Amino acid sequence: MAVYTHLGAEDLARLIAEYDVGELVSAKGIAEGVSNSNWLVETTGSGNSGTRFILTLYERRIDYADLPYFLDLLDHLAAKGCPVPRTMHDRSGASFRMVEGKAAALIEFLPGVSPTRPTPAQARSIGAVLADMHLAARDFPLSRANAMDFAASAAILANCGAQRLATVHPELPAMLDHARAAAALDLAALPQSQTHTDLFPDNVLMRGDTVTGLIDFYFACTGPMALDLAVTHAAWCFDAEGRYRADCGNALVAGYESVRPLKPAERALFPQIAKGACLRFVASRAEDWLETPDDALVTRKDPMQFVERWRFYDEAGAGVLDA
Amino acid sequence: MAVYTHLGAEDLARLIAEYDVGELVSAKGIAEGVSNSNWLVETTGSGNSGTRFILTLYERRIDYADLPYFLDLLDHLAAKGCPVPRTMHDRSGASFRMVEGKAAALIEFLPGVSPTRPTPAQARSIGAVLADMHLAARDFPLSRANAMDFAASAAILANCGAQRLATVHPELPAMLDHARAAAALDLAALPQSQTHTDLFPDNVLMRGDTVTGLIDFYFACTGPMALDLAVTHAAWCFDAEGRYRADCGNALVAGYESVRPLKPAERALFPQIAKGACLRFVASRAEDWLETPDDALVTRKDPMQFVERWRFYDEAGAGVLDA
Repeated sequence: MAVYTHLGAEDLARLIAEYDVGELVSAKGIAEGVSNSNWLVETTGSGNSGTRFILTLYERRIDYADLPYFLDLLDHLAAKGCPVPRTMHDRSGASFRMVEGKAAALIEFLPGVSPTRPTPAQARSIGAVLADMHLAARDFPLSRANAMDFAASAAILANCGAQRLATVHPELPAMLDHARAAAALDLAALPQSQTHTDLFPDNVLMRGDTVTGLIDFYFACTGPMALDLAVTHAAWCFDAEGRYRADCGNALVAGYESVRPLKPAERALFPQIAKGACLRFVASRAEDWLETPDDALVTRKDPMQFVERWRFYDEAGAGVLDA
Repeated sequence: MAVYTHLGAEDLARLIAEYDVGELVSAKGIAEGVSNSNWLVETTGSGNSGTRFILTLYERRIDYADLPYFLDLLDHLAAKGCPVPRTMHDRSGASFRMVEGKAAALIEFLPGVSPTRPTPAQARSIGAVLADMHLAARDFPLSRANAMDFAASAAILANCGAQRLATVHPELPAMLDHARAAAALDLAALPQSQTHTDLFPDNVLMRGDTVTGLIDFYFACTGPMALDLAVTHAAWCFDAEGRYRADCGNALVAGYESVRPLKPAERALFPQIAKGACLRFVASRAEDWLETPDDALVTRKDPMQFVERWRFYDEAGAGVLDA
């Protein structure tokens, strides 16, 4: 959530000159992105290029071998009319360049702001856009395994160990068995596509009830579309106190199904998948919690927030789609 | 250098609605500002308002009683054609509002990037713009004492103490006596105006050789114009290895004097004033160094950088203006 690498004005101007986007007009480092450095860049523009871009320098966590998947997927979806930013290609056609030993990409800037307290109308819109994206991505030629699938969550929690998990919260170790149960689910028969799998409200830009951008595709992967819907459901449909908002949940699913109705097998497994989705965030947050010193300046996210959401799905069962 | 306070999209939209600037289109937290939170905000615009702004939330260090001085000075200078951002006033005419218990101001966005390796042509431009600003500010009706004057630098170094200063660098304690000598200088007879006193390249926006913005006026104060020129000289005219760049120094002063020739008394005292200006940064950096834990994520600025510049001015003497 910061700018990790310093690029001076002259460095930025030289980098921008490699693209057919005109000359550099301004650049502001922005406080966004998980362990990337990002600048909001303005240029004089050229032809069809637009004049504002997000320049991302990939700092760590991201395997550069995955960049063609992430960046080409944006182009594929944008070409089909999905509200995702286009990747700008440099004069040689490359979607990313190396700068100071790091990969850098120039990505279209999209307007909009991220809702912090989504309304049902906004949830309905994001449901429909997510389904549009799933359908548009089905013929994308590349694929990427989900590095954060249910088996990975179980492995992360196992690696933390019950004793250390208990130091975070006494009810956390019990999640280890639930994560193993989720890992045993067979989702291979469910309809697949390219999926975002991290579509929290802060990865969505909106103006009013209209989705203007889906961003931050760095967890995107090939997998069951129902899992993406479940992640989105778990991320959008609870209020600040952690209470389920049926109005948002129903609107999200209705919006999704207005474009792609769920198959019976997806509906049947939905509560299980949503529980697994919650455990993915329980696992990564528990790991971060244990690895982050108590006095670090970084804000740690409480893994118990998603334990509570797991409990909601566990109790609601099939009722969550019929509330 | 971060966003310290979270303001959600709805909070931002509500705040923007208090101004006659149209509706919120986008907002990005930016990694700028010393202990303020800043967003680059876009609106639909209204009348003469423009559509892009920097929204600043003042976190600490700034005495809110000083805000009318800082913000009205921007308006005063902008009205006289200086390249500084206008302060937007809300519908009730106020230049700042309180949000979540903190003062917030909406300031015009200006294009341009900050040079990291200024050229002589750029130094000449900034010299001329600085002199323009000094002349334009002379009839500004408010005043503010310099909280970081030479006496303050001496007091900060004295408060650090010779023993602790020596832990930073063995040559640092000797600066204490030099700071006391600077504090004894009488600058009251020199021509005064409102001064920026922190005009490092990262507080200047340029396109090519043209200055498009002077920003970050939060050290601005009433005082000798020659001190502002000396700070700018010390901030702009040394290369990355700390060597004096006579080409930039000469160009800066020539640019300044093309608008406002220095008085004999200002020329005579210039080396002494430049040494005092260096000690202001030695003092604040030494204090930060001693107060920042070794393992903090924050980058500490080395106070010795300005000890070396102090030495340059000490050795160059009057020759610095006649190189």
